[in-house]
Amino acid sequence: MESNIKIGVIGYGYWGPNLVRNFAEIPGSQVRMVSDFKPELLAKVQSRYPSIQVTTDCRDMFSDPKIDAVAIATPVSTHFDLALAALQAGKHVLVEKPMTVTSDQAMRLIDEAERRNLVLMVDHTFVYTSAVRKMRELIANKVLGDIYYYDSVRVNLGLFQHDVNVIWDLAVHDLAIMNYVLSSQPYAVSATGMSHVSGGPENIAYLTLFFEGNLIAHIHVNWLAPVKVRRTLIGGTQKMIVYDDLEPSEKVKIYDKGITIKDNSESVYQMLIGYRAGDMWAPHLDMTEAIRVEALHFLDCIRKGERPITDGEVGLQVVRILEAASQSMKRQGRLVELDLARVAA
Amino acid sequence: MESNIKIGVIGYGYWGPNLVRNFAEIPGSQVRMVSDFKPELLAKVQSRYPSIQVTTDCRDMFSDPKIDAVAIATPVSTHFDLALAALQAGKHVLVEKPMTVTSDQAMRLIDEAERRNLVLMVDHTFVYTSAVRKMRELIANKVLGDIYYYDSVRVNLGLFQHDVNVIWDLAVHDLAIMNYVLSSQPYAVSATGMSHVSGGPENIAYLTLFFEGNLIAHIHVNWLAPVKVRRTLIGGTQKMIVYDDLEPSEKVKIYDKGITIKDNSESVYQMLIGYRAGDMWAPHLDMTEAIRVEALHFLDCIRKGERPITDGEVGLQVVRILEAASQSMKRQGRLVELDLARVAA
Amino acid sequence: MESNIKIGVIGYGYWGPNLVRNFAEIPGSQVRMVSDFKPELLAKVQSRYPSIQVTTDCRDMFSDPKIDAVAIATPVSTHFDLALAALQAGKHVLVEKPMTVTSDQAMRLIDEAERRNLVLMVDHTFVYTSAVRKMRELIANKVLGDIYYYDSVRVNLGLFQHDVNVIWDLAVHDLAIMNYVLSSQPYAVSATGMSHVSGGPENIAYLTLFFEGNLIAHIHVNWLAPVKVRRTLIGGTQKMIVYDDLEPSEKVKIYDKGITIKDNSESVYQMLIGYRAGDMWAPHLDMTEAIRVEALHFLDCIRKGERPITDGEVGLQVVRILEAASQSMKRQGRLVELDLARVAA
Amino acid sequence: MESNIKIGVIGYGYWGPNLVRNFAEIPGSQVRMVSDFKPELLAKVQSRYPSIQVTTDCRDMFSDPKIDAVAIATPVSTHFDLALAALQAGKHVLVEKPMTVTSDQAMRLIDEAERRNLVLMVDHTFVYTSAVRKMRELIANKVLGDIYYYDSVRVNLGLFQHDVNVIWDLAVHDLAIMNYVLSSQPYAVSATGMSHVSGGPENIAYLTLFFEGNLIAHIHVNWLAPVKVRRTLIGGTQKMIVYDDLEPSEKVKIYDKGITIKDNSESVYQMLIGYRAGDMWAPHLDMTEAIRVEALHFLDCIRKGERPITDGEVGLQVVRILEAASQSMKRQGRLVELDLARVAA
Repeated sequence: MESNIKIGVIGYGYWGPNLVRNFAEIPGSQVRMVSDFKPELLAKVQSRYPSIQVTTDCRDMFSDPKIDAVAIATPVSTHFDLALAALQAGKHVLVEKPMTVTSDQAMRLIDEAERRNLVLMVDHTFVYTSAVRKMRELIANKVLGDIYYYDSVRVNLGLFQHDVNVIWDLAVHDLAIMNYVLSSQPYAVSATGMSHVSGGPENIAYLTLFFEGNLIAHIHVNWLAPVKVRRTLIGGTQKMIVYDDLEPSEKVKIYDKGITIKDNSESVYQMLIGYRAGDMWAPHLDMTEAIRVEALHFLDCIRKGERPITDGEVGLQVVRILEAASQSMKRQGRLVELDLARVAA
Repeated sequence: MESNIKIGVIGYGYWGPNLVRNFAEIPGSQVRMVSDFKPELLAKVQSRYPSIQVTTDCRDMFSDPKIDAVAIATPVSTHFDLALAALQAGKHVLVEKPMTVTSDQAMRLIDEAERRNLVLMVDHTFVYTSAVRKMRELIANKVLGDIYYYDSVRVNLGLFQHDVNVIWDLAVHDLAIMNYVLSSQPYAVSATGMSHVSGGPENIAYLTLFFEGNLIAHIHVNWLAPVKVRRTLIGGTQKMIVYDDLEPSEKVKIYDKGITIKDNSESVYQMLIGYRAGDMWAPHLDMTEAIRVEALHFLDCIRKGERPITDGEVGLQVVRILEAASQSMKRQGRLVELDLARVAA
Repeated sequence: MESNIKIGVIGYGYWGPNLVRNFAEIPGSQVRMVSDFKPELLAKVQSRYPSIQVTTDCRDMFSDPKIDAVAIATPVSTHFDLALAALQAGKHVLVEKPMTVTSDQAMRLIDEAERRNLVLMVDHTFVYTSAVRKMRELIANKVLGDIYYYDSVRVNLGLFQHDVNVIWDLAVHDLAIMNYVLSSQPYAVSATGMSHVSGGPENIAYLTLFFEGNLIAHIHVNWLAPVKVRRTLIGGTQKMIVYDDLEPSEKVKIYDKGITIKDNSESVYQMLIGYRAGDMWAPHLDMTEAIRVEALHFLDCIRKGERPITDGEVGLQVVRILEAASQSMKRQGRLVELDLARVAA
Repeated sequence: MESNIKIGVIGYGYWGPNLVRNFAEIPGSQVRMVSDFKPELLAKVQSRYPSIQVTTDCRDMFSDPKIDAVAIATPVSTHFDLALAALQAGKHVLVEKPMTVTSDQAMRLIDEAERRNLVLMVDHTFVYTSAVRKMRELIANKVLGDIYYYDSVRVNLGLFQHDVNVIWDLAVHDLAIMNYVLSSQPYAVSATGMSHVSGGPENIAYLTLFFEGNLIAHIHVNWLAPVKVRRTLIGGTQKMIVYDDLEPSEKVKIYDKGITIKDNSESVYQMLIGYRAGDMWAPHLDMTEAIRVEALHFLDCIRKGERPITDGEVGLQVVRILEAASQSMKRQGRLVELDLARVAA
């Protein structure tokens, strides 16, 4: 029987415990070491998982030859240094979203991983939910027809970040989902936003993404909303989707609704548009935890030497949009063009 | 006893019947004439209100000396000509929103009404709902503290307009509400949008409005959404509001939630933000139909010679923003500055 | 061309105006007379419908040979006398629900109508909604499999009735719907309830209906609830329904959920039950007003000499259950048997 | 410093892990031993909590003099024997709900605990939620006025129990809550229900509870519902509550709604009832896990030698109602009287 893949996890704050729990529980992997600079968090690891080694110095992880792969769940500003060191130490890497602070950093990591033939995967968790996978399937199979728009609202109260604005914290989820479910890439972005904490990063933001054809996308993110909303509308020529991630079971609803456009040369302005309303349908969704699906995929890619669905290139594309959106936001909506085809380093 | 104010109503399509019904039922007014160019609609008037005169020529209304005031419920492109003719015939005017197609037209009407000492009122119906009046009261009384943001979503399937884009049709409601509940005016707008009907006006649009200080507003309107949403979030330093116009009774919910910002010079980045969560409260709202409140206000202004809450100036301010937003949308979000202090004609 | 059927409407309180409006608007009928003992209500009729005759004495209607049919929208205690007089005058009758105060009265009316070959229809409005018709179709086509239970909640604040308890006012709707959508009749009822107004009829009540096999039904009605609820659950061996009449569009949702029972003689208690969860589906429903569908059906039955879906026998079956439930409620849940096969008079 | 109270937990199935986690984490207690007859569950305990002893024989727990208290989380049919043995071994006992299968057993345990001066507490978890505590406070402070009714719906798909019917599994929660929030006890119960699994216990049931005065309570429980509902309505003379346990934050809503009864001797039947609608208010609720609050209370009672809020007497009262309801259900709603004042053994 194949031996377990040995995992090191850096960071045991908000997300790290989920990574540790999943890699500890699923067959085929084993968590060998956890690092964090807070000893009280390491004490928790020890009490829950006495067989896992702990350290405040993540270099112990890089120098341990038994560790095959490293999962990085630290603040975004540290992603590049940690991921680079891990790759240079020959470890496969799963890095938290967003991948890096700049697209240059992302490209450096991609190159490093390619050169060393290591798996580099970005933790775009929503891509591994059954709701998002179902939406991709529906769109790929042309159930919705051509896509008119993608509109997402992701707001709640807290948690204000200190090092990144709300786009990097919340819109990154929507960009990762769009990257997966839509078949094309935006060519430009216009963003607006505001900071309500003096000197702090923007805590409310609105992004409009333009695509070739008449596809438009919009993302609304807010750390200062009285209610939690996680709702996406997707409109197509044939059908439309409401995806509400807070619904306990029917997260994805498909509406057989739309317009019919009559090409009537005699009456251009009269009766041009017809409205169509049909059934609504909510497919049953598998309830497996997304992070488990993702961890299994990471292990699978390591074993088979394949590229993950959310590889470095995908991480880079998302970072490019985040960069451009932040730039547009500084100029109050000024359009910033994107070039998502990667330039060779 | 004072005699009834005699009303003429132009247009008996979607909104006209509501105006006729209200002016017919409330004490103090009487509908004397209805005009529409469709005889089948006039037949409906006659069968329901046999005492009301009908005509396909609205000039009959202007020339009737017994008519005191005219309500105009026709497509926006006709507002200016009809309102001007009515004012020139000495009639008080209640005109459907948006007031006119251009701000120049709006200014002409304001001047005409002032010169003749006539009431000119714009039918910003939402301003006369108890929900919106309650929000104005809460904001004016500083219950919310300083306002951080105003965010509205107004989407549904249909009805596509042929002569105006979705901003002029739907965002006009939000602009009218904001004009009433907020104490300041935006200085610039950035808008994006898209048309999904070849050659047609934009059917989906996003507006960001910038105000002095750190107040930001956003409006999302869409004629092509699978579900109907009418939801506004208002964030303040002290409290936040969720206003959902589709709720049957608790339309306005006030959340005692927010952030507390600690000015800790020693730890700028650590523990700067605290979160506060308290009670939620939904005030009981009077259920009187808004259009009835509005009609009573119009009659009252005529009798007392006073300016209506939604007078020509307010109508003009809204039209200015609509113009600027449409201009910004054509340039994919380019900021357009607003000068809402009126230039003397 | 066939001439219009002439209708007289008795009672212009809550429901009468809807009957008048529909019979006035649909092709094939004409409202000739309206009676009510309140002159101020008749004045409303005259102002809206100047061609309709009005009277405070409904005997004028019975003696008018031009009137073909009478619709009765008065308090339940008057139904029997008015309907009997109308039938004896040779008029077809549409009578408000519940049909009569006693089953004896209901049988008298049925006999009178049969003898005179007149249409006798009970106004079980919900039966004519597209939601209820869709549920009947789904159940008749065995989409749900065998029915396990029917459970309805119908509560709100007001309107307290003075002459009947909440069962006769609200549960009557559920009994009418059940009569239409289920293929069998209950054999016994147990009911409990309470009056919270001294000397008044019960304002909260719970009915359990027993059917042959293992079908059970329950109805919860309440005039004193803080929120309005109109929700029915129907469980079947194959699928289950949630019918929420307050939903604006998706009123009927079909869940592909249920249990699978494994007949495993070796492990009677272990693993006997499996759970099945599949898609949810909400069929598009026609939005025609139920009362219009019903009025058309009444006219059609008159023309063709056919029995209505909600004929006197159906009205009688519902009254029998109401009688039995009230009797059981007096005895705090004591089972009362029903014999819904009609005894010859 | 006082030493930790040492806990033994019997049963590591559905609820046991929550007990172990809480007693392990809160200060003042320590989990010393866990027993379960399934070795694979004990292996989980060992991997997560290496310092806890495990055994398949719970008698090891009774004979360990270091164990102060035992928490029993096993099927209800085993509660009596295990609790009795624990008490006889001198251990304090926290036993899962429902307390026992019969009220005789419950009385035996109460006597045993009293004689030995040991704490006997029943795990009525909902009583320790902030939502239920808030409701008790509101009712005790007469905010609702006199209580008219208590109405609860607790339905979902699964989990069918083999040894008890749905009343013992789900209605027990409502009975425990009612016992805590209402100030009086029911004097009789009428229950109906049905089994849809041949030979199995009833999986759907309806209970009506009668109290002195005009207070009535009703509980609807169902293992075979397409949707999960956890909603309670409480009506009072002054205010009404909607308690929805599935709401993420506003679980308790207080409506300033009701009726006003005018004692008008001249017009007994006319205009007797007025309707009042005011604000709605949702108090902020503490989010501490109920089981943690409960565990702290258990430890506190042990230390101080006090009676818990949910002591054996409360457990007995609930069991008496469960017995009576099951008896009534067998007779299709026949009223069964309750005598909740305890008869001396």
